[in-house]
Amino acid sequence: MEIQEFKNVVKNYDVVFFDAYGVLKNSSGMIPHIEKTFEYLINNNIEFYILTNDASRGPKSLAKSYIDAGLTMINEDKIISSGMLAREYLKTKVADGKVAYLGTKQSAHYLEETGLKALSIADLDLNNIADVNALVFLDDEGFDWHTDLNKLVNLLRLRNIPVIVANTDRSYPISDRMVAIAVGSIADMIEKITGRKFIKFGKPDSSMFIFAYQHTIKAQEVGKEKILMVGDTLITDIIGGNKFGIDTALVLTGNTLPEHYMDRIKALGIIPDHVCHSAVVY
Amino acid sequence: MEIQEFKNVVKNYDVVFFDAYGVLKNSSGMIPHIEKTFEYLINNNIEFYILTNDASRGPKSLAKSYIDAGLTMINEDKIISSGMLAREYLKTKVADGKVAYLGTKQSAHYLEETGLKALSIADLDLNNIADVNALVFLDDEGFDWHTDLNKLVNLLRLRNIPVIVANTDRSYPISDRMVAIAVGSIADMIEKITGRKFIKFGKPDSSMFIFAYQHTIKAQEVGKEKILMVGDTLITDIIGGNKFGIDTALVLTGNTLPEHYMDRIKALGIIPDHVCHSAVVY
Amino acid sequence: MEIQEFKNVVKNYDVVFFDAYGVLKNSSGMIPHIEKTFEYLINNNIEFYILTNDASRGPKSLAKSYIDAGLTMINEDKIISSGMLAREYLKTKVADGKVAYLGTKQSAHYLEETGLKALSIADLDLNNIADVNALVFLDDEGFDWHTDLNKLVNLLRLRNIPVIVANTDRSYPISDRMVAIAVGSIADMIEKITGRKFIKFGKPDSSMFIFAYQHTIKAQEVGKEKILMVGDTLITDIIGGNKFGIDTALVLTGNTLPEHYMDRIKALGIIPDHVCHSAVVY
Amino acid sequence: MEIQEFKNVVKNYDVVFFDAYGVLKNSSGMIPHIEKTFEYLINNNIEFYILTNDASRGPKSLAKSYIDAGLTMINEDKIISSGMLAREYLKTKVADGKVAYLGTKQSAHYLEETGLKALSIADLDLNNIADVNALVFLDDEGFDWHTDLNKLVNLLRLRNIPVIVANTDRSYPISDRMVAIAVGSIADMIEKITGRKFIKFGKPDSSMFIFAYQHTIKAQEVGKEKILMVGDTLITDIIGGNKFGIDTALVLTGNTLPEHYMDRIKALGIIPDHVCHSAVVY
Repeated sequence: MEIQEFKNVVKNYDVVFFDAYGVLKNSSGMIPHIEKTFEYLINNNIEFYILTNDASRGPKSLAKSYIDAGLTMINEDKIISSGMLAREYLKTKVADGKVAYLGTKQSAHYLEETGLKALSIADLDLNNIADVNALVFLDDEGFDWHTDLNKLVNLLRLRNIPVIVANTDRSYPISDRMVAIAVGSIADMIEKITGRKFIKFGKPDSSMFIFAYQHTIKAQEVGKEKILMVGDTLITDIIGGNKFGIDTALVLTGNTLPEHYMDRIKALGIIPDHVCHSAVVY
Repeated sequence: MEIQEFKNVVKNYDVVFFDAYGVLKNSSGMIPHIEKTFEYLINNNIEFYILTNDASRGPKSLAKSYIDAGLTMINEDKIISSGMLAREYLKTKVADGKVAYLGTKQSAHYLEETGLKALSIADLDLNNIADVNALVFLDDEGFDWHTDLNKLVNLLRLRNIPVIVANTDRSYPISDRMVAIAVGSIADMIEKITGRKFIKFGKPDSSMFIFAYQHTIKAQEVGKEKILMVGDTLITDIIGGNKFGIDTALVLTGNTLPEHYMDRIKALGIIPDHVCHSAVVY
Repeated sequence: MEIQEFKNVVKNYDVVFFDAYGVLKNSSGMIPHIEKTFEYLINNNIEFYILTNDASRGPKSLAKSYIDAGLTMINEDKIISSGMLAREYLKTKVADGKVAYLGTKQSAHYLEETGLKALSIADLDLNNIADVNALVFLDDEGFDWHTDLNKLVNLLRLRNIPVIVANTDRSYPISDRMVAIAVGSIADMIEKITGRKFIKFGKPDSSMFIFAYQHTIKAQEVGKEKILMVGDTLITDIIGGNKFGIDTALVLTGNTLPEHYMDRIKALGIIPDHVCHSAVVY
Repeated sequence: MEIQEFKNVVKNYDVVFFDAYGVLKNSSGMIPHIEKTFEYLINNNIEFYILTNDASRGPKSLAKSYIDAGLTMINEDKIISSGMLAREYLKTKVADGKVAYLGTKQSAHYLEETGLKALSIADLDLNNIADVNALVFLDDEGFDWHTDLNKLVNLLRLRNIPVIVANTDRSYPISDRMVAIAVGSIADMIEKITGRKFIKFGKPDSSMFIFAYQHTIKAQEVGKEKILMVGDTLITDIIGGNKFGIDTALVLTGNTLPEHYMDRIKALGIIPDHVCHSAVVY
């Protein structure tokens, strides 16, 4: 597959969904010149959204990092996170009581509008769980892993409640050499120990793309063939976009390296419609 | 969880999605008196659809078994099968060329409207594959397993093409004592051997529910809270419906036995909103 | 399968391997009257060993709990733990340098005799890892889960070293209602995140049984047909014993409950040669 | 890791275990000049065995291909196959009745000496299974995949018997471009469908190495540090040898290519003691 200029790709679409990490930013900050991409999109009346498997903070807080970097066009309305899908689930399917959560107080933002009482796993008392009606994995911080993960396993033995995973990623980069364990890996471990089936939200799952699609009036007007998903990861962004029926562009500024992209595409059999060096429009 | 009368459950909804096997019929034929359910739904202006992981035949052919059994209200417009999602994928994402498929000529019905040329794996010649642009798993019959599954593994080594699985079930009943290996199991085996990632359609995946939802004008008018999914299997029908945000009713006429249903619900942590002996309205 | 008296079973063997937890003891302490079993074995010249997937303490320390409970015949020579296999691996395959370990100082006992320098993951500095030549999972305590598991993932990204898992259990009981996450679950999570293949010791793996067999002169004299494995867990003790070619007895004082044992045997297809209520000889 | 001359490696050992395919032969026949290796071993009094996950034919038949190619020193006594472990299992653990098997009549060789009656799955009648006391996966040929794999699933639903898998490989090469599905993949598919736990023999499982070790008087005299495992596959030959505590040499004439070996070693974290271009002694 030949590498194309991003501009020559993106100009043919009316709506663009971007992955965040590895596409717009990396461990050093924003990808240099990425602001030009958004200027181009706005000038050409191409709508855009950021689809992220990040449930550690609400859309407002997620948008702040872009605004602080000068990308003022990326406000909270442009952010679609897997945490929003967890919130929708709770609003629709859990009538009352408390929701226990793994994560920081900041991540509990997603639970506020549900009408349910949020209870950090750190504050949960196993002798007082009669009204705990759901459990949500939001973030890998904000609790003591040893104490609270063991508490959580026993909560699930004592209460038969739905468990929602709002981020299915395994790890995430924290510098150019180092990664951190993501809450998706922790959720997988607990699922195996308890034998339960958890409800998981996040790319590549279709529900993320549908949520974005239904969120976007223009997307529904133009139809799937005029939407482009831009991502750096074949097994989340690209396969998810392909399955949803929209076009996909792989960029080489994150997980998939320029020297390996063809090998990875062949090994996995996940084929993007386009490959670009980066999402920058020059 | 207490067992409720199905009538007392279903009367509160405006749209009902039914699983087929284990809910409406079983290896002996239609569930006795199930016609009363559909009479009740029609009389009370409750819309209904059948959601099935069956890609072996087209909707018309799937509907015929109901019509032949006197359920004339179940015509092809009422059938939503995972084969239809595979068809949508091919229409949107594969531009031209041939689609190789596993299945009977009858299952190839799903490929007709795509504009692509359908080619049974049985007829495929490995020396002539330059224009084979996709592979679809439709049914477990219509080919020689030994010859053609080996052929298929080598096709995937030689051509880097998307692979679509239109039925993710592992097995299906063929009598009250016997089961058959479903094409979903075969696809899993090939996926492991080749190391590729296949695109899979069928409950519990959200795309099946979204397709049904978007298919139903009334569903979109009434909203998710007025839709009920009725199924006999926790790990497909019930978890899928729950995740999509609609209410779910487990019936005990199929995979989940009356003597085991509470144990299964507890072991898996998949909790239906309702449990009923059957989907029959008396 | 009929339930037999343990005495009528054990009298036909010359060597007996016992699982510890769920067979000899449980969360309340020793199984009542289990001392009679050992008196019977000694009086009848039947040799015995305890095979345990416990690498949290050395054999001496593991034996102490039995001796403290009055079972003075169970000294350290009678204990065969998966930690001993990890120690053998390190002695044979790692020539020099440091071994990083997860576990308490007590668990590091297994590393003492290897000639290698033991280094707790809690004390490891990622800037000073050039001489770290192996990593061993021993116990779920003795380190900070958040800090040190993240450190460990990055250690494996920076150093290509063998990783040994000395306990493959997923969880273990800490009271009659509560369980704790075992180090085997943590190892599985890290293995998935890093994509590496770890070397794992513990039942049901054959190497545990071979080690016990080679440890026992009498076992080699009498041959496999005169050895009995006694356990409470089908997927570790019983399948492991069966595969090694020795007879197996399932007891119903631990993981497998009297009301479920036949269902479990049928569901898993793991068939013990004998089933007994307990390992007590009356 | 530096690439060494095989001669300089092998001269330091007293016993050598060779993998067959990818080390001694490939799809074109014997590796050129491999006879020199065996001449060197014999002249230097180094004992050797071939460890193969091939249960399709007995040792005599497996040896014939070497003898026919002029390697007359490789007679049946030099062959240790995973089929031999299945045979040992049946001899020790299955007292009487019939053993159903998947494979050719040739593969049934392994069942002859067990005293049990071998019954090809092709000849099995599901109405007459009362005396079928075990099932063995030996080879991917000799039966009709569609009819007989379905028959086999139902046999396991009707009879609770041990299932033995005598070859755990996923696929095997049949030419320089083509592979075939191995019986190990079929067994994995059936295991998933039935939910049963099968008993599996073959590298990397320790029981294969132990069987070879116990088979070799010299191996026991010299101890593990004087034994070398030579293989082309990291996830079977090398990790298996490492875990068993013997030294390992990776050769680059089969599954692991010269241009990828360091990437593969790093990605999997499976570290051979030596790497050689081939197993040929010049």
